[in-house]
Amino acid sequence: MKNELSVNRLAWKLLEKLYEKSRYYGVTVEKTSSETTIVDAGIKARGGFQAGKIITEICMGGCGKAEITYCKYGELELPSIIVYTDHPVIATLGSQYAGWQIREGDYFAIGSGPARALALKPEEIYNKIEYRDDFDKAVIVLETDKHPSAKLLKRFAKECKVPPENLAVILTPTASVAGATQVSGRIVETGIHKLNMLGLDLKVILHAWGCAPILPIHPKFTHAMARTNDAILYGGVAYFVVECKDEEELRKIVNEAPSKASKAYGKPFIEIFEEANYNFYKIDPNLFAPAVLIVNNVKTGKVFKAGATNAEALAKSLAI
Amino acid sequence: MKNELSVNRLAWKLLEKLYEKSRYYGVTVEKTSSETTIVDAGIKARGGFQAGKIITEICMGGCGKAEITYCKYGELELPSIIVYTDHPVIATLGSQYAGWQIREGDYFAIGSGPARALALKPEEIYNKIEYRDDFDKAVIVLETDKHPSAKLLKRFAKECKVPPENLAVILTPTASVAGATQVSGRIVETGIHKLNMLGLDLKVILHAWGCAPILPIHPKFTHAMARTNDAILYGGVAYFVVECKDEEELRKIVNEAPSKASKAYGKPFIEIFEEANYNFYKIDPNLFAPAVLIVNNVKTGKVFKAGATNAEALAKSLAI
Amino acid sequence: MKNELSVNRLAWKLLEKLYEKSRYYGVTVEKTSSETTIVDAGIKARGGFQAGKIITEICMGGCGKAEITYCKYGELELPSIIVYTDHPVIATLGSQYAGWQIREGDYFAIGSGPARALALKPEEIYNKIEYRDDFDKAVIVLETDKHPSAKLLKRFAKECKVPPENLAVILTPTASVAGATQVSGRIVETGIHKLNMLGLDLKVILHAWGCAPILPIHPKFTHAMARTNDAILYGGVAYFVVECKDEEELRKIVNEAPSKASKAYGKPFIEIFEEANYNFYKIDPNLFAPAVLIVNNVKTGKVFKAGATNAEALAKSLAI
Repeated sequence: MKNELSVNRLAWKLLEKLYEKSRYYGVTVEKTSSETTIVDAGIKARGGFQAGKIITEICMGGCGKAEITYCKYGELELPSIIVYTDHPVIATLGSQYAGWQIREGDYFAIGSGPARALALKPEEIYNKIEYRDDFDKAVIVLETDKHPSAKLLKRFAKECKVPPENLAVILTPTASVAGATQVSGRIVETGIHKLNMLGLDLKVILHAWGCAPILPIHPKFTHAMARTNDAILYGGVAYFVVECKDEEELRKIVNEAPSKASKAYGKPFIEIFEEANYNFYKIDPNLFAPAVLIVNNVKTGKVFKAGATNAEALAKSLAI
Repeated sequence: MKNELSVNRLAWKLLEKLYEKSRYYGVTVEKTSSETTIVDAGIKARGGFQAGKIITEICMGGCGKAEITYCKYGELELPSIIVYTDHPVIATLGSQYAGWQIREGDYFAIGSGPARALALKPEEIYNKIEYRDDFDKAVIVLETDKHPSAKLLKRFAKECKVPPENLAVILTPTASVAGATQVSGRIVETGIHKLNMLGLDLKVILHAWGCAPILPIHPKFTHAMARTNDAILYGGVAYFVVECKDEEELRKIVNEAPSKASKAYGKPFIEIFEEANYNFYKIDPNLFAPAVLIVNNVKTGKVFKAGATNAEALAKSLAI
Repeated sequence: MKNELSVNRLAWKLLEKLYEKSRYYGVTVEKTSSETTIVDAGIKARGGFQAGKIITEICMGGCGKAEITYCKYGELELPSIIVYTDHPVIATLGSQYAGWQIREGDYFAIGSGPARALALKPEEIYNKIEYRDDFDKAVIVLETDKHPSAKLLKRFAKECKVPPENLAVILTPTASVAGATQVSGRIVETGIHKLNMLGLDLKVILHAWGCAPILPIHPKFTHAMARTNDAILYGGVAYFVVECKDEEELRKIVNEAPSKASKAYGKPFIEIFEEANYNFYKIDPNLFAPAVLIVNNVKTGKVFKAGATNAEALAKSLAI
């Protein structure tokens, strides 16, 4: 443990930056009666690209970098986000992955970020990646457009084993620029999650880099969510450096990894979702992956690439 | 006012960075006898990309970020500048816009940057955007290759209502790398200015992002200026997130916004300027706009795009 | 000298950052019995993109910036590195250039970075560029996968005229992500070296910018080295702003500068190297150059471009 990075410690430093320059970042920061910090990055606050960038880094537990950049997809120019990390498994499955299903009364949200590494949500992932954090402060990021209740905040603090005043909660609605930015910033995480699902031993992943467009936002949650998916499925590129002995297995996994490997591939996500009667569980889970995966095996020097960006699907997603 | 960002306060922090690392930035910093700070970023000093990047951020009143990047326009590879801001109207019309016409004897220069928000140049813009700055220090950026006189500096300080020792003046010639960089860094500002001219209510603009090439520089002012225009007109891409009720009006405005909407469009700016007998007022003002505008209306989720980058015109501008 | 930047002073600041955040950068830092600092950025340590980026900046003597970005070469998406500097000759020939041939017993390594400017390796370059550093600390970067001996470290300190405790040695194997990143980060240096070989007066070079892909790494040194060459030869773009009186001479030099000017051009470097029986001296030295050079002469405004990126050769290099 001593040689590991503390995702909450690194993220807390970034949180302090967000706090100190809150007006610049377009966020509002308030303290609850229990002194828990609540950062609004797009509900009443305006948020934006800057907030989305730093929240992406916070989600990665401070173990990676995010930069706003420019990419062209066919004839479509779009702001995009680059992320890279030399601690890919800790940064993504250990922190950024939206693995904390939160339900409290009729409040529902998906939690991500470093707090998961204290609350061990879900524990099997932390056992698998053999990572635990040890820090007295916790940062959780909620993709939501509603404030959590005092009861829920109390629960968060308890599950993270931190006092309420050492808990910070960042709220990013899907239908906001900060929200869209931080979802596209999950390009590497989406790739690692898919590789994990396909059976790749996570320990082999040494370095990762990725880029995805930040698609225009939509006021309706379903459409906004659909676009954030399209950004990854049709525009996302993820690149991994791995050290893998079974190269035949690796080749197979990479070939099955991109979104293209799914039968659902090709249409804007909103259409796929409609055809599934707005039921996530009816959608082929294979779909959720970057458009392109490139894997460099340092054991042999070989490079495997699968998938392709799909400018047509992106244009359809935006109806332009 | 309390909840607003102070463009001069944020810019002054960047100025201190420029000052502390002046040799790295290739600028020279001197104090006049009245203790006013003069930064030479390309007259006798060499300046460069780094100076151009930070001066772009100073021009935006510290309310946005600039990054030097790489773009390919047809077969032409060029260093380029990305800018983005979540305070687009304050950063551009409230600060970066070259709206202060300066004449003192036979000295002529265009002033931009945060000092405008103290001197209210021009006042109608500040009334329109409902922004005022309140800070005891002022930073003005002059696109010029000549030092302003002591008399003019005194006037600046007076108009900004700051003591002379709290005034900083940054000099960037058009025919310098720092100059070319900071003009291309006006890609978002040029877009907002055009949208404003076409009647868009500025309050609807929430976020902005843009990219433009930094074109090679020319020793003659007219040619250097022509190229900085070509960078925007033929290479510039501007992206806006707006919240707009009248979408039919928005669609119309976006369609008329790019440089392509002008009859003068297509030739290198130097030719257009020659045909107008070197008289700016004879040139169709519609020309001054980004090559591409993309507007996302968060009210409906719709995306409007108009214009296209023009690699051929860029190549002609450089005669390659 | 007083007005010059100290490459070791600027690099030492970056070294302190690397030291303070060593776990984040994936490097290990140890002190020898003589208190010399040894940074392992890819031998036993994992290193990575972050380490590669900051080591690139250290190699440039802190006189330039490096950013990890995204480029597409034909159908191949790759992480890439952008570098730019407004002190191009000091940053490259005065520091980054791998000009210190080190041999001690059977240990062989190539030294680069700011320490060269204290040890004057080689002296003719420092005479030519009229640069000397004056600082009591020295940073040397070795492209190697072996630790230098105590005897060699003592020699380094002596040659740099610094006490052993003021010497820092950074070790980056070619077959590591940090190594591949920092070699691609030499895109501007490779261009300047070639222009120098072709007889361009170095004093005319005022500003430089470049970009090159970070190619997948290979475990075998020869193949790893071959790919780092391919990154520059087939993917690298270098852009220079010069002030040059003899433009006809400049045009000639630029035309001869890109890798394409060599008869060996076109095949992956590993094949060229095999055909030369793994003997560097049998390879046409003209090959070692960026794929593309673009030169802007501020004396006339003219722009010269030669060469082109070669996506096919890059794909062949990676066998995909």
